[in-house]
Amino acid sequence: MRRVTRAVWRADGVSNGERAVPEETPVALTYNGTTHAVMMASPVDIEAFALGFSLSEGIISTPADILSLDVIAVEDGIEARMWIAEEKMAVLGARRRYLAGPTGCGLCGVESLAEAIKPAAQVTSRPVFAATTLLEAMALLGPAQALNHETRAVHAAGYFEPGRGLLAVAEDVGRHNALDKLVGKVARLDAEPAKGLLLLTSRVSIEMVQKAAVLGVPVIAAVSAPTSLAIRTADKAGITLAAVVRSDGFDLFTHPERIDLGASPRQAHVA
Amino acid sequence: MRRVTRAVWRADGVSNGERAVPEETPVALTYNGTTHAVMMASPVDIEAFALGFSLSEGIISTPADILSLDVIAVEDGIEARMWIAEEKMAVLGARRRYLAGPTGCGLCGVESLAEAIKPAAQVTSRPVFAATTLLEAMALLGPAQALNHETRAVHAAGYFEPGRGLLAVAEDVGRHNALDKLVGKVARLDAEPAKGLLLLTSRVSIEMVQKAAVLGVPVIAAVSAPTSLAIRTADKAGITLAAVVRSDGFDLFTHPERIDLGASPRQAHVA
Repeated sequence: MRRVTRAVWRADGVSNGERAVPEETPVALTYNGTTHAVMMASPVDIEAFALGFSLSEGIISTPADILSLDVIAVEDGIEARMWIAEEKMAVLGARRRYLAGPTGCGLCGVESLAEAIKPAAQVTSRPVFAATTLLEAMALLGPAQALNHETRAVHAAGYFEPGRGLLAVAEDVGRHNALDKLVGKVARLDAEPAKGLLLLTSRVSIEMVQKAAVLGVPVIAAVSAPTSLAIRTADKAGITLAAVVRSDGFDLFTHPERIDLGASPRQAHVA
Repeated sequence: MRRVTRAVWRADGVSNGERAVPEETPVALTYNGTTHAVMMASPVDIEAFALGFSLSEGIISTPADILSLDVIAVEDGIEARMWIAEEKMAVLGARRRYLAGPTGCGLCGVESLAEAIKPAAQVTSRPVFAATTLLEAMALLGPAQALNHETRAVHAAGYFEPGRGLLAVAEDVGRHNALDKLVGKVARLDAEPAKGLLLLTSRVSIEMVQKAAVLGVPVIAAVSAPTSLAIRTADKAGITLAAVVRSDGFDLFTHPERIDLGASPRQAHVA
């Protein structure tokens, strides 16, 4: 976050003052000395970002696969310098791509259309959430968005586990980066994603669902709307997708069996 | 756009019905038989997207550099099949990357941090706009967002030229794609970008400014906020950046000399 001066024009006059705007920095993700990707990201939680990106992209399968991770400020940005086992590097080398995403690219190193829409991992856990739990969890996210509170211009991803509350929150100018950061944070917690709820302030496109599937959460609750490809992908991955979550309700697109809709006050009253 | 059925949960009960959601499709951009990028995009205006992407990325410098362009529906998505002159292809080959962006990656083929924040082209034209013109132009954009009117989930970019009005509008689930589509549309118009106004419904990150600089527009007016890197880049590129544009005003971040702020009613009254 940075404070900048700017003129404010309104119909009744001009004023000058400061406004907080989010930072955006190129982050190079390097493995064993080789640059794999350069992403434009908010320069916070870069370690979690590097870990989460590595997991989301399938470069590693567990945090322990990263032998060392150093976050280094360099002249034009930040380097997340990782060292991974040689056998992981061989796999990465085979599909190595150079990628730069402005505010986070969900799909990296995809050469073919078929690979772009490859089936997400299956989520098979079957916890049931009261509909009101989704609203309560989302209500916790807003106050935890520290960067957005100041700038009103960054996305957030949150992880909620029943009985334990909002365990992790990540923010970024890019929604994909925010989710990758969250994946990295959750991986370092004593969490059980198979029982948890993924909260998103953003729209839901296919790669948000693909990342959620890697994380292993059975339910996504998002403030904005999904694309039709995201809906089809969530359906195939066995993920419950609730979107357009507002203070008074939400739309439920896939796998409604995990949501106890009967918990609404009116239905309870009728019963 | 696609209509899907979903359950709507509200505190007073559950209903079922349809909702329009935006489509999202992988689009392969191929040059002379080689895939350069796979982007997730809204499957409209793909020809303009291919042309605009090619211009924004500096792969071509004029529409005539594309010898042929065919948009082909294939099993898993869409191929924009382009043929360009061999000397252009040689340049592309040298920096060829495989890239897949979820909803549009502004920066493609960037291997280094320095290249990610490379200076944008300079915009030197000096038209002056009344502050009210920005609001009037933005007011024209809303009704022209056909896809967003139905789905409430896609971004738009518009091009306005004084005396000629809103000449082009493009929509996409990704804001970078929407701008690339607009660049493609404007390139095929008898337009004079050096006199025009770029309208964006989205936040302004660095690569939105870089694309605007390639388009050659002197002024950007955006609904949402800029990042600090976008502000610095607009400043260096000589671009006027107005953001947080609302029905009653806006914030002006860079090069205010192109905006006649004195045109506000109160100041006019005082004068």
